[in-house]
Amino acid sequence: MTRTGPLDRLLVIDLTRVLAGPYATMVLADMGARVIKVEAPATADDAREFGPFINGKSAYFMSLNRGKESIALNLKDDHDRAIFEKLVAKADVLVENYRPGTMEKLGYGWDRLKDINPKLIYAAISGFGHTGPYRARAAYDMVVQGMGGIMSVTGYPEAGPTRVGTSIGDITAGLFGFAGIMSALYDRERTGKGAMVDVGMLDCQVAILENAIGRYLADGVVPQPLGARHPSITPFEAFATKDSHIIVAAGNRTLFEKLCGALERPDIMADPDFETNDLRTQNHERLKVELEKTLVTRSAEEWLRVIGDAGVPCGPINNVEQVVNDAHIAARNMIIRTDDPVAGTVRMAGNPIKVTGFDDPRKRRPAPQLDGDREAVLELIGMADASAR
Amino acid sequence: MTRTGPLDRLLVIDLTRVLAGPYATMVLADMGARVIKVEAPATADDAREFGPFINGKSAYFMSLNRGKESIALNLKDDHDRAIFEKLVAKADVLVENYRPGTMEKLGYGWDRLKDINPKLIYAAISGFGHTGPYRARAAYDMVVQGMGGIMSVTGYPEAGPTRVGTSIGDITAGLFGFAGIMSALYDRERTGKGAMVDVGMLDCQVAILENAIGRYLADGVVPQPLGARHPSITPFEAFATKDSHIIVAAGNRTLFEKLCGALERPDIMADPDFETNDLRTQNHERLKVELEKTLVTRSAEEWLRVIGDAGVPCGPINNVEQVVNDAHIAARNMIIRTDDPVAGTVRMAGNPIKVTGFDDPRKRRPAPQLDGDREAVLELIGMADASAR
Repeated sequence: MTRTGPLDRLLVIDLTRVLAGPYATMVLADMGARVIKVEAPATADDAREFGPFINGKSAYFMSLNRGKESIALNLKDDHDRAIFEKLVAKADVLVENYRPGTMEKLGYGWDRLKDINPKLIYAAISGFGHTGPYRARAAYDMVVQGMGGIMSVTGYPEAGPTRVGTSIGDITAGLFGFAGIMSALYDRERTGKGAMVDVGMLDCQVAILENAIGRYLADGVVPQPLGARHPSITPFEAFATKDSHIIVAAGNRTLFEKLCGALERPDIMADPDFETNDLRTQNHERLKVELEKTLVTRSAEEWLRVIGDAGVPCGPINNVEQVVNDAHIAARNMIIRTDDPVAGTVRMAGNPIKVTGFDDPRKRRPAPQLDGDREAVLELIGMADASAR
Repeated sequence: MTRTGPLDRLLVIDLTRVLAGPYATMVLADMGARVIKVEAPATADDAREFGPFINGKSAYFMSLNRGKESIALNLKDDHDRAIFEKLVAKADVLVENYRPGTMEKLGYGWDRLKDINPKLIYAAISGFGHTGPYRARAAYDMVVQGMGGIMSVTGYPEAGPTRVGTSIGDITAGLFGFAGIMSALYDRERTGKGAMVDVGMLDCQVAILENAIGRYLADGVVPQPLGARHPSITPFEAFATKDSHIIVAAGNRTLFEKLCGALERPDIMADPDFETNDLRTQNHERLKVELEKTLVTRSAEEWLRVIGDAGVPCGPINNVEQVVNDAHIAARNMIIRTDDPVAGTVRMAGNPIKVTGFDDPRKRRPAPQLDGDREAVLELIGMADASAR
């Protein structure tokens, strides 16, 4: 029997909606876990309503929820609560991304959940975490991108505030949530004990600021937006060619020499202003002008071949259409598909974690219809006769 | 005895340099694993040379390598290879972020590693992964940000190519690497078998494109840079006030009503152009003009109080200094410190994964001096007498 992935013995109850939580449970499902989405019959996951739609089904919802099952349960109804509690008792993991306090209002705070199942790993992903002065506030990706500092280092000073073009606030919280779940599960193998994992989106923004915090705390200079340039390595940025921009990343002296050689510009190499990385970083504007004098004489495609053949890391700036059609991305199985009963064949981003011994299927199970797996879920908890509502 | 974290029984051999790999092993160390950096005596981790420096020690290196140990080994020297192989035999995990082929050249490809230790989890994090046409190419963060599509949706069309202001290409590869390691480790608990985890930075960029791929494949429209705006939810963007920009995220009709109420602008609410989210998204430019007419009359601080009190998610756009000094970020222990023997007290970003039952220490062990833990490491493998080099 082919296994679905290294996590195929995990049962996950998924109360998440929209993005941060669903991203965490998407990775769990991609890695083989059985993920059961518990949705409110009336409201369901909001993302089911996000356009664009394919035959009325949200592309957004379908890509984040591939491979999951769905059961509709009203957690304010006694009958449905009994079903939910049986699921919790049987589950390895429960994930939710409500505002702190919501689970308590439903009567399912961590104290109650661990009464039902002392081995449960309970992951709560929220805007600001379950402690601290902002804990009760609602947050969306845009809010934590603004508060967490990443917007202050992204873009051009003169262009105005710039958001990272993907919901990096939600996505990194989903990934750290997954990391916390797996850490707690690994520990449970020895202790037999459950745990609560508390991940706040704002915290995750701080954790991905990389060298910006270290630089500020070392020299007291507040990091500024840097356009398309690396803050401390030069040349390491986007350059204009005859037709479009390309990225050139000559991260050390050897690569800088190779770049000047490929461009047939020994004068740049010999210029004392460009002798060390520190000098190149100080004089980056003039260096860019000099490099572009040559780069604008030929097309991006030609330069990428010449510079790449010289062994200097470089690449195009692809749009989404070019990404989807890239040969390497296809070879890495990074565009997969599902056969959806309503939307037909739907393509989406694949799973970037490749593990020996497991298939990385080109086709995954589609996202569920609301309540589409009621029977199978009730069977799992020995309540198949309760399927009549 | 206080445990260091849920992963305190893991032994990790860390061959990584600079960022993507070190980020993965940083999270492993933060979660309690014993991480032993194996560095070449002559070259060490390049990041030790990245400025700014505190008493000559790289702030960049110190923040990414807190809590790890270091031993200097020349993997081309027989004596040192024997030490390395004993470490591999004893380890749970080995992580490297060399270009594919480098480990084979050293004689430590996956086939050899699993001969030495059939239970080993071997994680290889690289630019393009170990398969596919681009596998042999070098990549840096900038290159995969360009190739993976995120730059095509970040920034303003008129401002030129825009990089995400943090090395999101490296960092997400580190996080997916961690996810792969933990998935393989969890499976090993049952099977007793090791595995190789292959994570490519470019693949991870595709995996975090969120709805951009789904939108393009649904409607054929190539996603464009959106400045500081959400592509399909409105109003959900940065707005000017009297003094600085703020983020307002009114993601549904109720929140939009509350926002118009807080601004005392019932006329906006009543405008048929703004009736549904789709209409607000179509007419986002005019809506922004209308909202800013009122927002520019008062300061960011005043509006954040008024709009926040109305229950609408909103927040400032903080710079790194404001992030480091934020009361909530302090309460969440997201700025931690190490007491470094050379650099003194060094502050850095903390661990966003909070797990019940484990401390989240305000102070962590400092990053190692090159070869600073030789004796302890040799003792671990019963070669303490080999410490004389």
